[in-house]
Amino acid sequence: MGKTLQATIDGVEPVRRKWRERAREHLDNLAIPPGSLGDLLDLAEQLAAVKQSLKPSVRKKTVVTMAGDHGVTGEGVSAFPREVTLQMVANFVAGGAAINVLAGVAGARVLVVDMGVAADLDNSIKEKILSCKVDYGTRNMAAGPAMTREQAVQSLETGIEIAGRLAGEGVELLATGDMGIGNTTPSSAILAAITGRSAREVTGRGTGVTGDDLENKIRVIQKALEVNNPDPKDPVDVLAKVGGFEIGGIAGLILGAAYHRVPVVVDGFISSAGALLAKSLAPASVDYMIAGHRSMESGHRYMLEELGLKPLLNLNLRLGEGTGAALAMNLVESAAQVINKMLTFEDAGVSRNTPGAPA
Amino acid sequence: MGKTLQATIDGVEPVRRKWRERAREHLDNLAIPPGSLGDLLDLAEQLAAVKQSLKPSVRKKTVVTMAGDHGVTGEGVSAFPREVTLQMVANFVAGGAAINVLAGVAGARVLVVDMGVAADLDNSIKEKILSCKVDYGTRNMAAGPAMTREQAVQSLETGIEIAGRLAGEGVELLATGDMGIGNTTPSSAILAAITGRSAREVTGRGTGVTGDDLENKIRVIQKALEVNNPDPKDPVDVLAKVGGFEIGGIAGLILGAAYHRVPVVVDGFISSAGALLAKSLAPASVDYMIAGHRSMESGHRYMLEELGLKPLLNLNLRLGEGTGAALAMNLVESAAQVINKMLTFEDAGVSRNTPGAPA
Repeated sequence: MGKTLQATIDGVEPVRRKWRERAREHLDNLAIPPGSLGDLLDLAEQLAAVKQSLKPSVRKKTVVTMAGDHGVTGEGVSAFPREVTLQMVANFVAGGAAINVLAGVAGARVLVVDMGVAADLDNSIKEKILSCKVDYGTRNMAAGPAMTREQAVQSLETGIEIAGRLAGEGVELLATGDMGIGNTTPSSAILAAITGRSAREVTGRGTGVTGDDLENKIRVIQKALEVNNPDPKDPVDVLAKVGGFEIGGIAGLILGAAYHRVPVVVDGFISSAGALLAKSLAPASVDYMIAGHRSMESGHRYMLEELGLKPLLNLNLRLGEGTGAALAMNLVESAAQVINKMLTFEDAGVSRNTPGAPA
Repeated sequence: MGKTLQATIDGVEPVRRKWRERAREHLDNLAIPPGSLGDLLDLAEQLAAVKQSLKPSVRKKTVVTMAGDHGVTGEGVSAFPREVTLQMVANFVAGGAAINVLAGVAGARVLVVDMGVAADLDNSIKEKILSCKVDYGTRNMAAGPAMTREQAVQSLETGIEIAGRLAGEGVELLATGDMGIGNTTPSSAILAAITGRSAREVTGRGTGVTGDDLENKIRVIQKALEVNNPDPKDPVDVLAKVGGFEIGGIAGLILGAAYHRVPVVVDGFISSAGALLAKSLAPASVDYMIAGHRSMESGHRYMLEELGLKPLLNLNLRLGEGTGAALAMNLVESAAQVINKMLTFEDAGVSRNTPGAPA
């Protein structure tokens, strides 16, 4: 295991109960019926605990969209051709993709990272993204490991370093995103490897495979698990054998966010595969995660269960890019403002309820 | 029925199928897997159809929070004392309430309306709100009609006029909100009157009544329905007998929004009671409604069913004020931006999928 990776894992601390309690005490005094802002209060409590402040701030929001290609696309697991990964990176840079639009509404910057696109990018594109290519796409995991163990560590440490750099720039809220044709396949395999669920249980339609193609996708995932036999106790082994460069980058970003005490909104299926790896490496990292949404991809619910996270949104999204996380950023901002700005009963001069004695 | 009310009802037209189809055709060409932005695409389609434009705009967002008191609070149906309605109006004006904070994040103005607070408001407050007091609170509906038929019409027409004025000022997205201690009780009664459901089915805990107090609340609602026998075929009669001034105002606001083709985000339980009345008066008005969220108040699901609306958020809120609607405004803005700004496959130079032949 790399030095940076190990130091980061060792440095992720659970949020302190004391700060949760302080936050809850303040929230209980806001001039509303107790608990009536529901999940927003839980989120406000989490933000206060992560930031160790009753005035948590979530400025300089940044969505980090990690791109990578997958050798397993040669097995016919995706409804889209592989070149779309590169084309979509160009679309991100042009500002015409969903993530650009939704991050714009959220007031967030989009940082695109080439973790392993299977092509050389034009300089005009490279200027506007982070080039951290580990390799030109992974190898076909149905025939052997997707990457070497060294590449897996490199993917994770790249994500960690990006989180560290952004935290240093004053980014106070991160979101994860992905782009990679074929990447629901390794994400499903990671879910199966870590939880022991069957390939059939964890496999969904991705960008739109159906019928025989879905059966084929299940077989490919099953084969990848059999051929590689990833060790569920060793998340780096799981990533190396059935993962992807962008998934490793996302896992690293989450670990780095947790290390620097920056809350991180986790997007859908691919991002949650990264989150599973992060949790396996550093269990306390879940304290810093916010589940942006529940994806339509069928296995996502198992990931959320495993992470113990309740998604903020459920809008039948299945796009990735960070779109669900970007949409949820506004709710995170709302929760932060609730604890920052709302008046208490006392300050607002509002009468409290008298439990057991309705007026 | 008043002249303004009748003309408004007559003027509410269903959105045109042609615009829905045009919008869907455009959305199907965006450079994403078909349908992968889920409910956001449905919302974008609705906005385009409401605005009759493929570039729908939702500027000058405004939350209209209608306040009123209820004579039925004398029956012990709320966990909070009646004076809280007035105190919260003062809190809205001071900017320290949840709706101020959440509307602020949504970039929306909050317009507070005194529809029937049971007190004279200070001039310092009156200057900052709309004073449209129909009366000093409703009468006790457990003993007779909550208001006269004329007052019911006046409540509705007040809401209609406010919507018209705001539409004239260029408001392109409205949201409803309420403040009124005791107002889950008339809202439950309206739901029961319109759908024929029992008092027990439609009654929830409101701001926090439990045990014997909840049983009492159910009995009070049952009694109000028996004493008044509202005519489910006559929504003005339902409003007059078991409604509230702010609920009539909300219903009118929705009708006025529909008349002026302004989409309106409906908040939770009380707002949805207003929406039920609006739908009963002008069925096509639902085409202009967006359900902001599903409230924790138990009967809200029946209201959403009756309206045929799917809520955007489900955050266990039960506060009112317009808070759930304000939180959802950002999703409406997001949907509008998706149809306005995203590039198509062709424009973005992205390869389409080839159904039945995965790469």
